[in-house]
Amino acid sequence: MLILLEAGASAEQVGQVLALLESAGVKAQVNESAEAPSIAAPHASKVLKADRIEALPGVRKVVPITSPFKLASADGAVQKTVVDVRGVRIGGGGLALVAGPCGVESREQLFATARYVAEAGVTLLRAGAFKPRTSPYSFQGLGLEGLRLLEEARREFGLGIVTEAMDVETFDAVERSADMVQIGARNMQNFALLKRAGRSAKPVLLKRGPSATLEEWLYAAEYVLGEGNRQLVLCERGIRTWSDHARNTLDLSVVPAAKALTHLPVMVDPSHGTGRRDLVVPCARAAVAVGADGLLVETHCQPEKALSDGPQALLASDFFQMVEQCREIHRVLKETPAGFLAF
Amino acid sequence: MLILLEAGASAEQVGQVLALLESAGVKAQVNESAEAPSIAAPHASKVLKADRIEALPGVRKVVPITSPFKLASADGAVQKTVVDVRGVRIGGGGLALVAGPCGVESREQLFATARYVAEAGVTLLRAGAFKPRTSPYSFQGLGLEGLRLLEEARREFGLGIVTEAMDVETFDAVERSADMVQIGARNMQNFALLKRAGRSAKPVLLKRGPSATLEEWLYAAEYVLGEGNRQLVLCERGIRTWSDHARNTLDLSVVPAAKALTHLPVMVDPSHGTGRRDLVVPCARAAVAVGADGLLVETHCQPEKALSDGPQALLASDFFQMVEQCREIHRVLKETPAGFLAF
Amino acid sequence: MLILLEAGASAEQVGQVLALLESAGVKAQVNESAEAPSIAAPHASKVLKADRIEALPGVRKVVPITSPFKLASADGAVQKTVVDVRGVRIGGGGLALVAGPCGVESREQLFATARYVAEAGVTLLRAGAFKPRTSPYSFQGLGLEGLRLLEEARREFGLGIVTEAMDVETFDAVERSADMVQIGARNMQNFALLKRAGRSAKPVLLKRGPSATLEEWLYAAEYVLGEGNRQLVLCERGIRTWSDHARNTLDLSVVPAAKALTHLPVMVDPSHGTGRRDLVVPCARAAVAVGADGLLVETHCQPEKALSDGPQALLASDFFQMVEQCREIHRVLKETPAGFLAF
Amino acid sequence: MLILLEAGASAEQVGQVLALLESAGVKAQVNESAEAPSIAAPHASKVLKADRIEALPGVRKVVPITSPFKLASADGAVQKTVVDVRGVRIGGGGLALVAGPCGVESREQLFATARYVAEAGVTLLRAGAFKPRTSPYSFQGLGLEGLRLLEEARREFGLGIVTEAMDVETFDAVERSADMVQIGARNMQNFALLKRAGRSAKPVLLKRGPSATLEEWLYAAEYVLGEGNRQLVLCERGIRTWSDHARNTLDLSVVPAAKALTHLPVMVDPSHGTGRRDLVVPCARAAVAVGADGLLVETHCQPEKALSDGPQALLASDFFQMVEQCREIHRVLKETPAGFLAF
Repeated sequence: MLILLEAGASAEQVGQVLALLESAGVKAQVNESAEAPSIAAPHASKVLKADRIEALPGVRKVVPITSPFKLASADGAVQKTVVDVRGVRIGGGGLALVAGPCGVESREQLFATARYVAEAGVTLLRAGAFKPRTSPYSFQGLGLEGLRLLEEARREFGLGIVTEAMDVETFDAVERSADMVQIGARNMQNFALLKRAGRSAKPVLLKRGPSATLEEWLYAAEYVLGEGNRQLVLCERGIRTWSDHARNTLDLSVVPAAKALTHLPVMVDPSHGTGRRDLVVPCARAAVAVGADGLLVETHCQPEKALSDGPQALLASDFFQMVEQCREIHRVLKETPAGFLAF
Repeated sequence: MLILLEAGASAEQVGQVLALLESAGVKAQVNESAEAPSIAAPHASKVLKADRIEALPGVRKVVPITSPFKLASADGAVQKTVVDVRGVRIGGGGLALVAGPCGVESREQLFATARYVAEAGVTLLRAGAFKPRTSPYSFQGLGLEGLRLLEEARREFGLGIVTEAMDVETFDAVERSADMVQIGARNMQNFALLKRAGRSAKPVLLKRGPSATLEEWLYAAEYVLGEGNRQLVLCERGIRTWSDHARNTLDLSVVPAAKALTHLPVMVDPSHGTGRRDLVVPCARAAVAVGADGLLVETHCQPEKALSDGPQALLASDFFQMVEQCREIHRVLKETPAGFLAF
Repeated sequence: MLILLEAGASAEQVGQVLALLESAGVKAQVNESAEAPSIAAPHASKVLKADRIEALPGVRKVVPITSPFKLASADGAVQKTVVDVRGVRIGGGGLALVAGPCGVESREQLFATARYVAEAGVTLLRAGAFKPRTSPYSFQGLGLEGLRLLEEARREFGLGIVTEAMDVETFDAVERSADMVQIGARNMQNFALLKRAGRSAKPVLLKRGPSATLEEWLYAAEYVLGEGNRQLVLCERGIRTWSDHARNTLDLSVVPAAKALTHLPVMVDPSHGTGRRDLVVPCARAAVAVGADGLLVETHCQPEKALSDGPQALLASDFFQMVEQCREIHRVLKETPAGFLAF
Repeated sequence: MLILLEAGASAEQVGQVLALLESAGVKAQVNESAEAPSIAAPHASKVLKADRIEALPGVRKVVPITSPFKLASADGAVQKTVVDVRGVRIGGGGLALVAGPCGVESREQLFATARYVAEAGVTLLRAGAFKPRTSPYSFQGLGLEGLRLLEEARREFGLGIVTEAMDVETFDAVERSADMVQIGARNMQNFALLKRAGRSAKPVLLKRGPSATLEEWLYAAEYVLGEGNRQLVLCERGIRTWSDHARNTLDLSVVPAAKALTHLPVMVDPSHGTGRRDLVVPCARAAVAVGADGLLVETHCQPEKALSDGPQALLASDFFQMVEQCREIHRVLKETPAGFLAF
C-alpha cells in the first residue's frame, strides 16, 4: 500500500506510522521528495487493514498498489521521478544528454573526446573503466586507472561522470568516482549487483537486457528501489532479434510503454541500439521524438582506433549535428504540450 | 550493368543498345525519368563486355551493378525515386501522409473518417476492401462493395485511394479503383502477386513482412521492379519479436538502413507497428524523425465499434495532433539540411 | 457445434439436419470417415439451439466447439485424422517418410536420387517443380517440365509424389501431377491459395510459416478445412529467430503442443529446419523422438551441384543411416505405449 | 597455440616449456588428463615462434589454435572432455541424468522427491537453495538452510548434488555443499561469477543464456576455462523467441552444433526449455535423440504445491516413464555407432 501523509505531518507522526508497520513485520520506505510525504509499504495490505492506518494522525489516505511493480509503478507514484546528476535533471520534461567513448583508453583519447562533448554543451560524460566483453581476449578496460582518468576529466572539463559497475567487487570503487553508476544490459538480472546499487547513494542508470521484456525490466528496477535508492533511470539500448541490418533492434515503442507504467525516467542509447554509426543520428532523433527523457551516445575522437565498439561511435561532426537536431525536435514536443504529456 | 546514355541520345540510339542486349538474350529496362536516360540490364555483364556497349553511339558510360538488388539498388540509381499518387509525391524530401480506417465497413464509417482526414490536410485515404485475416471467422472486408465506396469517397472528398490487393484474382478490380495498390505484409513473398503488381500501371506500396530481413524485402521489391513497374514505395510496419508490450516491434532503424541501399522511398506504418493507440502518435513522430518519407496511419471515427484493429486506430483528436507534430518535426529536419541528407 | 449422428443414420436423416442448418444460413460439413458420421457446423450455435437439432431423428448428440479452431480442434474431433497418400498413412501412430531433392533439376538428378530413396524403403518422393525463391535471379524450378519428370519418376520407381503449389494459377497443374500438394512456408497466409487447396481432392501438406505462432498455423489449417478438404497434414520447418548457428530454429516442442490442440497429423522438415547437413540427421532423430508423424527430408545425389539448398541436402549414405536410426527410435516409442500416447 | 608433449615428457621438461612461455609473458595451462600431456597457451603465437618451442626437449609438436575459443575449441582438443561428478561421467558417450525439484522448499519436499529420483536409478539430484527470481517478491529460496538440506539428502540417498551459485558472495558456501555448481542462464555473462567458477575445484554446469548465440556461450565457457577449471559442462535450456506455445523455444540443433565446435559435454534442460509439463517428456526424448550428453529435469513430489515453476515439474509417474524411454533411445544411438559419432 501507499500511505499518503498530510503536508504538515510531523516527524513524530511519520514515526508512529513506521512503528505500526514495523510491528507488523512490514518493510516501508518514506518518500519526502514530493510536497506531501508518503510511505510505500509493498504487500502491507496482506497484514494490515487500511482503516487501521488511516486512523493514525497525520495520515491523509491509504492507496492500494495493484501493480506488481510496487515501487516502480506509475499508479502508486505521487509524481514522476526526476533524477539529479551533478545538476543535470533527468526526467521532468527536459532532455538529458550523456556522451563519450565506449571505454576509457588513455588520457589523450578521453580528454580529446571530453573536450568536444563539453563544447557541444553536453555536461555528462560516459566512458567505461570496467568493460564487460563477450570474449575474455578482448580489451577489458583500464579498471582503476580508468576511474582516475575519469575523475581528472571531471575536474578539467566540469563534466559529470557516468560509468559502469560490472560487479559487486568493484562497485565501491566505481561508486566513489562516478556521479551516476550504470548497470549494463548483461547485468540486468544480476540480482546481487542490483541490490548493491540499491544501497548506493549515487544515482543509477539501469539498462534493459537484450532479451528482457518490459515487465522483467521493471522487476529489475524493483530490486534496486527495494533497497532504498530511488534515484533510478531506465535506459533502452536495443534488443536481440533476427533483424540483421543492425547489431540490435532499437525498441523505441518501449519508451512510451514504460512511461505509462512507471514514474521513472527513460533514456535511450542509440549507439548500442544500432551498432552502426550511420544509423545513430537518425535513431537519436527518433528517440527524442518518441518521448525519451535523454540520450546516452557513444562518440570517439578517432573511432577507427577505438579499442571497442568503434563502428558505432559518432565522429565529432556527426555528434554536433545530432545534438542540434535533437534539441530542435525536443523543442517541438515541448511547444505542443498536449502531445508531450500524452505519452 | 547500368548503361548511362548521353542527355541527347536519340530514340534510334537507344534502340540500337536494346537490340544488342536483346540479341544477347538480356532483359533490359529503359529509365527515362532522370535528365539523361539510362538502361538497367541486370546480369548483362555475364554475357556482354562493357566496352562493346560503350562503343555504341549515345552511350556515355557503363556502370557495373554489384548489388544483388539490380533494380532496387541505390548504387545503380541515377537519382532517388519519387512516386506520384494523385498529385502526392512520395520520396524526394517531402512527408507523405496516408490515413484512414483499417477496413471499409460502411458508407457512414468511411465518410465520417474520410471527412476529418481531409480536414487535417491529408489527401490520401487508406482503407481495406479486401481484408486478409488470420482467422477465417473474422470480418473479411466488404470486397467489391468496399471498392465502390472508396471510389465514392474519392469523388466526395477529393482523396486519393490506397487499398490492398490480396490476390491475383481480385487484383484487376483493386487496380481499377485504387490510386495506389498495397501489397500486405503476409504477401511480401507471394511472388505471383508481386509479379502482377509489377505489371500494373498503378503505384505500389510494398509492406515489409513481419519476419523479413531488409535483404528479403529488397528482393521482394526486385520482383515488382523486374516486371517494369518502377512506381514502388516500401513500408515498414513492425516485425515479430518476443518483446510483448506491443503487437509488433517497430523496427525504425530499418528506414535509414534501407535508404542507404535503395533509391526507393520508405514509409512507416506505426499503427500495425505497435497495435496500441497510445503508442501510435509517439512512434509516428519517431518515424518522421528517423527519416521516413511518409506515414500510413489508421484512424477511425469510432474505434470502439471497428470491425478490425480498433485498439490501434487513432481517435480524430489524436490524429490531428499527430499530423501537426509530425509536420513540425519534418520541418526541423528540412531546416538542418546536412542532417537530413545524412541518412 | 459438432453434431454427432447415430451409427446407422440414414442419408435422409443426414439430409434433414443439413436442410435445417442451411435454412438457418449455416455452413456445414459432413464427416463420414469415423464409425458414426458427424456434421461440423462452426458458429451454428449463434443461430440454432442445440435441442432443436437434437430433436431430429438420427442425431445422437450436439457438442459445442469452444476452440477457436472449429474444424482443426482436437476437442471437436471424433478421432485423429489419418491422411492416405498413395497407400502411405500419415497419422495414426506410424512414421511416414518423404524424401528427395529440393528441386527437380534434370531427369538424371531426379532419377538418381529417387532410386536410392526407394531403395531405403521410402515410398514418397518430394521435389519442387515450382520453386519460391527469395531472389528473382535464383533458379526458379523447371515448372511444367518438372511436373512431367515427377510423373515419370512415379511410374519408374513406384513413388508417390509430394510437390509444392506456389500459386492459384499453377495449382491445377500441380494438383494433376501430385499425390500430395505442399503449401510452402511463405504461403502459409496466402489465403487464396489455402482456399484453393481446400477445394482440392488431393491431400495437402501445410508448412508452418517462419514466423507463425501455433495459433496462426491452426487458423491457416482452418482456411483449408473450411473449403471441405479434410486430408490435411501440418509440417514444422523451423522458425526465424536470432539464434545463428543454423538457418532456422527447429521448434520441436510445437509438435506435441500442436497434437494437444488438433486432430491433424504433424510432420517435421529437419532440412529447412536447420539448413546444415551435419545437423539434419540428429534433428530428424529428435523429431521422431518428440512424436512427429513423419519426416520431410532433402537428399540429393550430388549436393555440391544442387541448384538450390545444396548445403542442407543429405548425402545418400547419411540418408540411409537416418532412415535406420529414425525407424529404431520410432519402434522404441511404439513399444512404450503409454508414453507414446502421452503426447 | 597448443603444445603437444611426448607421452613420457618429464616434469622438468614441462617446466622448461612453461618457463619459456612465462618469460614471454604468456599465460599457459597444462592438461594432463589425456595420455600425452599438452599445454594450451592462447595467443602465444603472437610473441613466440613455434619452432623455438618445438626445439625444446619433450615437445612433440606445436599446433595453432585458429578458433576464437582457445580453450573450449574442439580443434585444439586432444580428446573430448569427460566430467566426473561423484562417479557420474558426463560426456564420453553415456547419458547423465540429473533430476529434482526447482527449489529446496522443505526437508519433506526434498526427501520425498529425492527418494523416487534415486529409485529411478538417477544418482544426481538438482534443487536450488538460492533462487534467482524475476520479481523480488517471489520465493527466493531457503539459502544456507537449503544447502544443509541438500547435504542431508546426499547422505540419506547417496545422491550427488547439483545446485546453483547466484553470486560471488555466496559461491563459497554453494561450492562447499555441492558436487557440481550450476551457473544459471541469467548469469551466463556475469563475468565475475564465471571467473570465480573457473577458480573452483568443483565441476561447473554452465547454462546457455536465453538470448545467447552459440558463439557467446562458448566465450562464456572460455572465461571459466581460462581460470583453470576444466571440469565444465554446457547446458541448453531454451531461448527466448516470439513462439508462444511454450515458455521458451528449446533449441535442440544447438547440441550437435556445439559439439562440432567444442570438446565440452552438452546437456539439455527440457523443463525450463518448455515450461509445460506435457511437453517435457517428448522434449527430453528429443534431446537424447539429438545427441545430448545428459538431461537436467525438474520433478516434484507435489507440483501443484511447488513454490516455483510447478507447471513444468514432472509428476513421479511421468518421470519414471521419461527415464525409461530416454535410456532406450540412448541405447539405439549407441548401437548404431556411426550415427552416434556423426554429430
